[in-house]
Amino acid sequence: MAFEFPIRVYWEDTDAGGAVFYGNYLKFMERARTEWLRVQGIEQRQLQEQMGGMFIVSHAQLEYLLPAHLDDQLLVTAERQSKGGASLTIRQQVLRASADGGATPPTLLCEGKIRIGWVDGTTMRPARIPNRILEQFS
Amino acid sequence: MAFEFPIRVYWEDTDAGGAVFYGNYLKFMERARTEWLRVQGIEQRQLQEQMGGMFIVSHAQLEYLLPAHLDDQLLVTAERQSKGGASLTIRQQVLRASADGGATPPTLLCEGKIRIGWVDGTTMRPARIPNRILEQFS
Amino acid sequence: MAFEFPIRVYWEDTDAGGAVFYGNYLKFMERARTEWLRVQGIEQRQLQEQMGGMFIVSHAQLEYLLPAHLDDQLLVTAERQSKGGASLTIRQQVLRASADGGATPPTLLCEGKIRIGWVDGTTMRPARIPNRILEQFS
Amino acid sequence: MAFEFPIRVYWEDTDAGGAVFYGNYLKFMERARTEWLRVQGIEQRQLQEQMGGMFIVSHAQLEYLLPAHLDDQLLVTAERQSKGGASLTIRQQVLRASADGGATPPTLLCEGKIRIGWVDGTTMRPARIPNRILEQFS
Repeated sequence: MAFEFPIRVYWEDTDAGGAVFYGNYLKFMERARTEWLRVQGIEQRQLQEQMGGMFIVSHAQLEYLLPAHLDDQLLVTAERQSKGGASLTIRQQVLRASADGGATPPTLLCEGKIRIGWVDGTTMRPARIPNRILEQFS
Repeated sequence: MAFEFPIRVYWEDTDAGGAVFYGNYLKFMERARTEWLRVQGIEQRQLQEQMGGMFIVSHAQLEYLLPAHLDDQLLVTAERQSKGGASLTIRQQVLRASADGGATPPTLLCEGKIRIGWVDGTTMRPARIPNRILEQFS
Repeated sequence: MAFEFPIRVYWEDTDAGGAVFYGNYLKFMERARTEWLRVQGIEQRQLQEQMGGMFIVSHAQLEYLLPAHLDDQLLVTAERQSKGGASLTIRQQVLRASADGGATPPTLLCEGKIRIGWVDGTTMRPARIPNRILEQFS
Repeated sequence: MAFEFPIRVYWEDTDAGGAVFYGNYLKFMERARTEWLRVQGIEQRQLQEQMGGMFIVSHAQLEYLLPAHLDDQLLVTAERQSKGGASLTIRQQVLRASADGGATPPTLLCEGKIRIGWVDGTTMRPARIPNRILEQFS
């Protein structure tokens, strides 16, 4: 089952079209991805300090199905789709929670596929993901 | 006692200086203000639909004391400072929660004073705050 | 030849990794796309008023090759890749201009493929692109 | 006479209220401030490399008078209001250019007063502005 993180929509997230600005789904997905990594014991700032590197996004693909609006309660998922020695591909969904407290299922608004690659913190060049991190995703 | 809302710092909030971009404190304060209004029964989207108007920010003042960093757990407060017939002034603070689970008090990072004015939803011109809302702040 | 639009990198565009936040390339691409539409006589706000609809992004794909940094002078391109009755696919590149005034060619940083679909302004549902607009892209 | 920098309003700048999100005026003002510093020979990235420090915003005050909308052509000004040994206060205005090519004067939308303080790049603590920079503002 995918990790799930709740996100509320505020004014800052919307645009004059009346819905969430499409670029902001990348932010929502990153918040969920960060919390998904955190529950696996991976803190972004510590990565740089202890492992000498960090994950950066190398590829992103987004499909927009339905709009999200101000005050909407969203659920953003994260789950590993595939794993290489230098990158991970994460599948993510943004759903709108039903207003009836879960009696009806959430509505899928946006789907994403995000590839994150490990880079050396000094050279910023692609490198092999440290074993200690890679093991978390086995 | 002031209303308090937790906010986590993500990559999207930071800039190349290594800390949170100063403009983003306005976003943090608005999230807290929105939730503070929500616990008082005021939903932003419903305001437009039911009251024919909305609050807009007419004045903002921010004092930056210390930087916030990636992964920091912040607390953002909101409390009414003063009330007029057409506007409210809200005092807000952004604090960094201590990492020891509250044994040491949070650190003040930024202080703000935000004035929000009521505008008619059609003309977008300043108008008197509807009584039903004004009563919430007595 | 692709349309080309210059964009400068400011603090707001960067994150604590020291480079431009990957989500912001969607903003850069939209600015270039908007100006590309404008030189073809298509103003976004007028679309809503005169044509009763607007373009929304339905699919986005981004490949990140090299980072952009503070103060960099970028060039963002836009060109039509394919055209349907209800959507357009636009190919975009973000390049870093050389500091020698063009003696060396610009460096490719990010590539994008953005699909924009026409929606009715009232129902926000997909609809056929009005002929007057479609003709611009023949 | 104040320095003046043109900025166009895109979807990314607006919110569901139909106008520019109030927090984004801080971004507009910073773009103008950065270009104003640049014409005085001060590049932000070089400051860090050559002077071992940087300017950070320590105080911001914004008054919102009228909204800006999608596709608006704005003019953002910057001029020194006062100068201390460790900080500068800059007065800024955001105006909407008239659509008639300047026959009617621009309309004032937002006024700001931004104080920027010099900090040491290593300790990030306030420090005296280097003489070479201070001389630019005499």
